[in-house]
Amino acid sequence: MRVPCPVPRNRFHAPPDYRDHRKHAPDLLPEELLDEANAALLSSGQFQEPDIKSRCVTLSTFRQGTEPADRAFVHATLQILDGRDQAVRKQLGELVVNAISEMVRPGAAGQTVQVTVNVVEMERATFSKQIIGG
Amino acid sequence: MRVPCPVPRNRFHAPPDYRDHRKHAPDLLPEELLDEANAALLSSGQFQEPDIKSRCVTLSTFRQGTEPADRAFVHATLQILDGRDQAVRKQLGELVVNAISEMVRPGAAGQTVQVTVNVVEMERATFSKQIIGG
Amino acid sequence: MRVPCPVPRNRFHAPPDYRDHRKHAPDLLPEELLDEANAALLSSGQFQEPDIKSRCVTLSTFRQGTEPADRAFVHATLQILDGRDQAVRKQLGELVVNAISEMVRPGAAGQTVQVTVNVVEMERATFSKQIIGG
Repeated sequence: MRVPCPVPRNRFHAPPDYRDHRKHAPDLLPEELLDEANAALLSSGQFQEPDIKSRCVTLSTFRQGTEPADRAFVHATLQILDGRDQAVRKQLGELVVNAISEMVRPGAAGQTVQVTVNVVEMERATFSKQIIGG
Repeated sequence: MRVPCPVPRNRFHAPPDYRDHRKHAPDLLPEELLDEANAALLSSGQFQEPDIKSRCVTLSTFRQGTEPADRAFVHATLQILDGRDQAVRKQLGELVVNAISEMVRPGAAGQTVQVTVNVVEMERATFSKQIIGG
Repeated sequence: MRVPCPVPRNRFHAPPDYRDHRKHAPDLLPEELLDEANAALLSSGQFQEPDIKSRCVTLSTFRQGTEPADRAFVHATLQILDGRDQAVRKQLGELVVNAISEMVRPGAAGQTVQVTVNVVEMERATFSKQIIGG
């Protein structure tokens, strides 16, 4: 799962380090967001625990629309091996969007935050995996 | 839309901060590139203004081919909800590749810059979206 | 090809710069990993040399599963234009997973590193490309 985050303000130009993040979304720690998302996905019973790998990419350069409005977004991509039916895929996406939405707070009064989740199937027949060490 | 950028030289090892970028592509500001791309996409009439979300990821580690030639690339992924026909998808990709290409300049004499755009459909039936605040 | 890397420890919170990376995976240079992957892909005969573009994104925020175990992952996405059959796609993914796996070493005794490669086809009919300079 890839989660470009965390919820920066729309015209936020400062470097994307932790301190800057804290100023604008003091209640959100990216690590905690991933913890919640991983726990939600594990609860679905669809995945083995070590296979749930998530990452959060803080965006340093982004734009939303063309207006100078103060708004923000968190977009997650949930990549799963193919073979699950559409109802299950939809349910998995909702688990993630709910986990994120419960943790996200607007960075300022009046700010709107879009939280979106795109579910993408990975082709199992051509997927490769190797385990090193252990 | 994801746009790994901006146009670094092929063997550029310095940290990817703004100052380093300016040395190699002084005419390109990533923010302006996203502004142009968003404006082009809005002009298509296919999207609501607040839904056009773009990000630019400056690459710190990359390789092009296997030769030490001085060349660079900007690769954009345009993620749109499914349901638009192939001609519209092609047209949207061209809007983006044109917007980027008009702003990109080689970082040095003789340098070649590849600008590519991949149009990806997101499955509408399993896409999740929530609005926080506002 | 996108390769989120390099093999950070599961609970690694320090900034993702080169020095920190070296502490945890001293034998792995991201640039060398990309060199090996590009060489493997060129050897397949499926691609023109300048078209093999790879990038490595060091993850600053990530989680694997829900347990505090010391483990790590490298996940690569191989994006190729469509039209190659499944056997060729599978073979290309294996070239990449082998190139990465040969260079990855666990960061500590007992650490397990998952190396995975997802092969994704890009729609050729709507793909856009422009060459600047040269």
